[in-house]
Amino acid sequence: MSAAEAGDRRALARLLSMVERGDGAGDPDRPARQVAALAYRSGEEAATVGITGAPGAGKSTLVDRLVSVVRAEGGPVGVLAVDPTSPFSGGAILGDRVRMQEHALDPGVFIRSMATRGHLGGLALAVPEALRVLAAAGFPVLLVETVGVGQVEVEVASATDTTVVVVNPRWGDAIQANKAGLLETADVFVVNKADNPGAAETRRDLEQMLDLSNPGGWRPPVVETVATSDQGVGRLWEEIRRHQLQLAADGSLERRRRARLEREFRTVLTARIERDIGALLSGGEMGSLLEDVVEHRLDPYEAADRLLGAFGRRPPGA
Amino acid sequence: MSAAEAGDRRALARLLSMVERGDGAGDPDRPARQVAALAYRSGEEAATVGITGAPGAGKSTLVDRLVSVVRAEGGPVGVLAVDPTSPFSGGAILGDRVRMQEHALDPGVFIRSMATRGHLGGLALAVPEALRVLAAAGFPVLLVETVGVGQVEVEVASATDTTVVVVNPRWGDAIQANKAGLLETADVFVVNKADNPGAAETRRDLEQMLDLSNPGGWRPPVVETVATSDQGVGRLWEEIRRHQLQLAADGSLERRRRARLEREFRTVLTARIERDIGALLSGGEMGSLLEDVVEHRLDPYEAADRLLGAFGRRPPGA
Repeated sequence: MSAAEAGDRRALARLLSMVERGDGAGDPDRPARQVAALAYRSGEEAATVGITGAPGAGKSTLVDRLVSVVRAEGGPVGVLAVDPTSPFSGGAILGDRVRMQEHALDPGVFIRSMATRGHLGGLALAVPEALRVLAAAGFPVLLVETVGVGQVEVEVASATDTTVVVVNPRWGDAIQANKAGLLETADVFVVNKADNPGAAETRRDLEQMLDLSNPGGWRPPVVETVATSDQGVGRLWEEIRRHQLQLAADGSLERRRRARLEREFRTVLTARIERDIGALLSGGEMGSLLEDVVEHRLDPYEAADRLLGAFGRRPPGA
Repeated sequence: MSAAEAGDRRALARLLSMVERGDGAGDPDRPARQVAALAYRSGEEAATVGITGAPGAGKSTLVDRLVSVVRAEGGPVGVLAVDPTSPFSGGAILGDRVRMQEHALDPGVFIRSMATRGHLGGLALAVPEALRVLAAAGFPVLLVETVGVGQVEVEVASATDTTVVVVNPRWGDAIQANKAGLLETADVFVVNKADNPGAAETRRDLEQMLDLSNPGGWRPPVVETVATSDQGVGRLWEEIRRHQLQLAADGSLERRRRARLEREFRTVLTARIERDIGALLSGGEMGSLLEDVVEHRLDPYEAADRLLGAFGRRPPGA
């Protein structure tokens, strides 16, 4: 961890691999757990931005340009590219190393792909842990790009302070299909490839949707961009910053982070308990109790009592 | 229980209501648990037959006629009519009391509707428990009718020794849609309303499906019936009996019952553990630990350790 803090990228990459694999993340004496704990204790918080949208919407190019905008401000920036559908990672599939070539030699940019790798709690735990490691390693701005607009992708993207939803012109139907989910998730809408026909219409659809649903408070701006020619990306970053200032000002940043931690804690708990139950159900005692049940020596409830008695005492009041 | 065994129907109905509600089925000192345990210890096993199929297939009439056929053999018969979609029970919704009027005065017939009522493990536990209560009360033959062909319905129906799947003529599409599920479940197929056009075709479809998939062993017969005019019902009962003889002869009755008990035990375990987790997550300790997590005094894994430490020690090797 200290090497990573000092800017050693290989050390950082190794730490992130540990977090991704989640090796024994539940056990105090395993490295993944130690990494998670150290990063947690550091208490460093980065400004996190999730970028989600259907494949082909131009998210990667957009992220690439955003990195340049953030770098122009001077601070370092980390990118986590998450593909929940891929068992591979390290950039091989997402092609980040190729794509992000212009940033490859910039020591202020760290890019990392991440996939579902066997972490106890899946990406729901691996992503926030990785973000904390990156924050602890000195990246004050972190972009999280997810592929797709399914539930998992949206969940991952919304495990950030600001969630950017990227659509394209003439995607009216796609928007309709997942309207509620998008409205709930998006802090900023981007109509990318805005030089294509239908951009104004898509923007109007989004604005109407927001007119109908917005309950007051922050109204997600709709930003038109043409990422390939760098149009609108500066404006997008301004809107993201504006959102983060607003979050900090009205106390909702604190609330969001709190809610995220609560969710994470519950996920850890559930994952731990599921693992323990798995161990119980495949253990030797299970077999002999099952035999007693089958032979009608014990009814299933008595057998459960005995097995859970071996597991631990029942919680008070149960 | 002893009153129920002596043929007291009100006592039996009360026992079944307890099982259905599942009041504190996990707690040794609650009546539902005691009923379940007593019935379990009795070790009485009835021949159980599940009848499933889409609404309108004529299952109820078929069950009604089957009851007559079984009664003609002299022994008592119990009917459990299960509606997983209804929160009501007692026959009000399914109209069994009206429908089964001809058996209402027959002391050798016991008919009971059952719905999802709040049993800890849902119908997956309530149905086998109710079947054991009925078996212990002296019913050697039990028919379980479920409404619908969804996963829950099929699961409930297949918690029996013999599962009868009822279809109607020209239901080729319905069969296609759930082909794998039906093939896995059905021990006997019935084409009811076989006096309607398309009966022969539906029968042929089923036979072809069986030709393609049957791995040897028991081949589900396809029986045509017209339940309203009592045609084919005797033949259906013969096929059910033939299946049960085969099950007993080749040892698969033992294997099926064993597998069912194992499933039931796992369901009890899971339901118990879920309840205990629910208690943990809403308990007071959760709140203070969450505060520690939010304030970065504990990482989520440490907090989980503490909470689970309060729950019980970890299982060996975890």
